[in-house]
Amino acid sequence: MEIIDKLSFDEKGLIPAIIQDTASKEVLMMAYMNREALEKTLKTKRTWFYSRSRQKLWNKGETSGNYQTVKKIFYDCDGDTLLIEVIPAGNACHTGKRTCFFQEIFKDKDTEEKKEIIRLLDQRIRERKK
Amino acid sequence: MEIIDKLSFDEKGLIPAIIQDTASKEVLMMAYMNREALEKTLKTKRTWFYSRSRQKLWNKGETSGNYQTVKKIFYDCDGDTLLIEVIPAGNACHTGKRTCFFQEIFKDKDTEEKKEIIRLLDQRIRERKK
Repeated sequence: MEIIDKLSFDEKGLIPAIIQDTASKEVLMMAYMNREALEKTLKTKRTWFYSRSRQKLWNKGETSGNYQTVKKIFYDCDGDTLLIEVIPAGNACHTGKRTCFFQEIFKDKDTEEKKEIIRLLDQRIRERKK
Repeated sequence: MEIIDKLSFDEKGLIPAIIQDTASKEVLMMAYMNREALEKTLKTKRTWFYSRSRQKLWNKGETSGNYQTVKKIFYDCDGDTLLIEVIPAGNACHTGKRTCFFQEIFKDKDTEEKKEIIRLLDQRIRERKK
């Protein structure tokens, strides 16, 4: 597939893939794909990854049933990272959590949530005016 | 810092950091941090990364002015990826786009957006009942 040739796989033939819930926009997990995993993902519309520890392809959900149905795939400006929007059939994390990112290192105490909502509304209004 | 010792930096001493807009939840970019970059990020509340090509630390926004103010930092279940929620002062991408992930490989034509909104509402309602 021509578009895959634009991607920069690393020296091990891998590219990181960020998995995001297409509805909630929650980041669920990050895993690595090789060319074959990406091709299988595109063909089956379900996520396939390359396990660096087990050194083989794996289909997310094949054991747990928590498949991820692929809705959109983006690549970044320098072509070395994928962002994949999915509908998750269940939890992403093997620990039973919805997302793998459930452990916090830091949280700003000075939350500026109201300011943030205003900023976001402003951004959306500007976009609609275009 | 004790919590940093729980993280798995790779053989080059790096850990990938996914940068997400804390309000819109849009994924803006992914870049790599070494221990020093993470420490500087925690200290300054602005994102610092390690450039693999230039082999040095860089502070996002130092040239463009598009700083990212850090609101939350998470690490994933196996401690080898960071998720950082930020307030971006401007565009994340050096191309002038808001996000680095503006190029699409795939988009599912059978959008099930209504189903998705219902699923999400259902999820939120269940969470509130807990």
